[in-house]
Amino acid sequence: MNADKIPDIIIGRLPVYLRALQRLADKGVLNTSSQELGEMIGISAAQIRKDISQFGEFGKQGTGYSIPFLVDRLRSILKVDRVWDVAIIGMGDMGHALARYNGFTNRGFHVTMVFDNDPNKIGQKVGEFEIFSTVVMIEKIKQQKLKIAVLTTPASAAQEIADQLVKAGIKAILNYAPISLTVPDDVRVQYIDPVTHLQRMTYYL
Amino acid sequence: MNADKIPDIIIGRLPVYLRALQRLADKGVLNTSSQELGEMIGISAAQIRKDISQFGEFGKQGTGYSIPFLVDRLRSILKVDRVWDVAIIGMGDMGHALARYNGFTNRGFHVTMVFDNDPNKIGQKVGEFEIFSTVVMIEKIKQQKLKIAVLTTPASAAQEIADQLVKAGIKAILNYAPISLTVPDDVRVQYIDPVTHLQRMTYYL
Repeated sequence: MNADKIPDIIIGRLPVYLRALQRLADKGVLNTSSQELGEMIGISAAQIRKDISQFGEFGKQGTGYSIPFLVDRLRSILKVDRVWDVAIIGMGDMGHALARYNGFTNRGFHVTMVFDNDPNKIGQKVGEFEIFSTVVMIEKIKQQKLKIAVLTTPASAAQEIADQLVKAGIKAILNYAPISLTVPDDVRVQYIDPVTHLQRMTYYL
Repeated sequence: MNADKIPDIIIGRLPVYLRALQRLADKGVLNTSSQELGEMIGISAAQIRKDISQFGEFGKQGTGYSIPFLVDRLRSILKVDRVWDVAIIGMGDMGHALARYNGFTNRGFHVTMVFDNDPNKIGQKVGEFEIFSTVVMIEKIKQQKLKIAVLTTPASAAQEIADQLVKAGIKAILNYAPISLTVPDDVRVQYIDPVTHLQRMTYYL
């Protein structure tokens, strides 16, 4: 089976399955069914079974899924059975909140560096981090061989920073700046813009 | 044409089109093409033309789209030609960042109330807002007839708060808590979890 052929929309649902399964695991639950999982996350049981079956045989008719086993496999498929070091660029309110966010722990990510271009912020501490200048960003990211960055600059600075991140070897950008980025084909971008999410709901109101 | 029949995936792209068009408008650009827009946002010109044509005739062969006209129409379709008052529940780092976020302005949303359950936070100020107790949340949201809430509590509190929001008449929840919510069919939820976005990219690394 060629993993590259699996549609991105399925890949996008796997982290949601993993999150729900890890929640059950934290409660000490050992087995679940596609029905139970589906009710937790609002996706049909059939869809869940179909998605998961793309990656092999996991469930047993009648007994459902072994949660520890499925969690292990999903973590491996999503490559979060390791810890990825992450840089955050832009130490405004959102950057601060993310630098201090404890939700990355045990989910595959660890913030290791934070950057800003404001001379008043450079050298200051955010939690355990010293804020570095974006002037040394490419160098520091290359040194640490980081592949993942979170971009929380204003929209006006985002494309320029993204270009520098690409030069530094970053392959995945989580972009909080409310602007679409242009990057090479081998670099992925995911967007978080509260307004686009809200507008997607107001349509239905 | 029955607007209810338009697939949600198309509705999800409209805010991205609108954001890009507003960016061009801010620069004083008056016309654009599906090609230009597509290059800005990384969506094919054909897809953009197809999506936009669902809502009527906008572009002209050869001259492209009038940006002010298309912006107006998209704002009307997405119902952000008005300003929606929004409540934020959970005044941790993320709630603070969102309460102070200036990116809502001119995009259809205005934060009007913030809530927390921590006695040490209640009564304190976040920017222009006084933090209210979640004890009075249902009452205050009902009074103001709010339809939209942003949920930034810990995962452990999120479902209980969501249940209360539903009772208060909220119809759209933007959920930053890393947990899937169960809500009635007439309530929409959009999820923002940086980890699920990051995991969707690590798969490809």
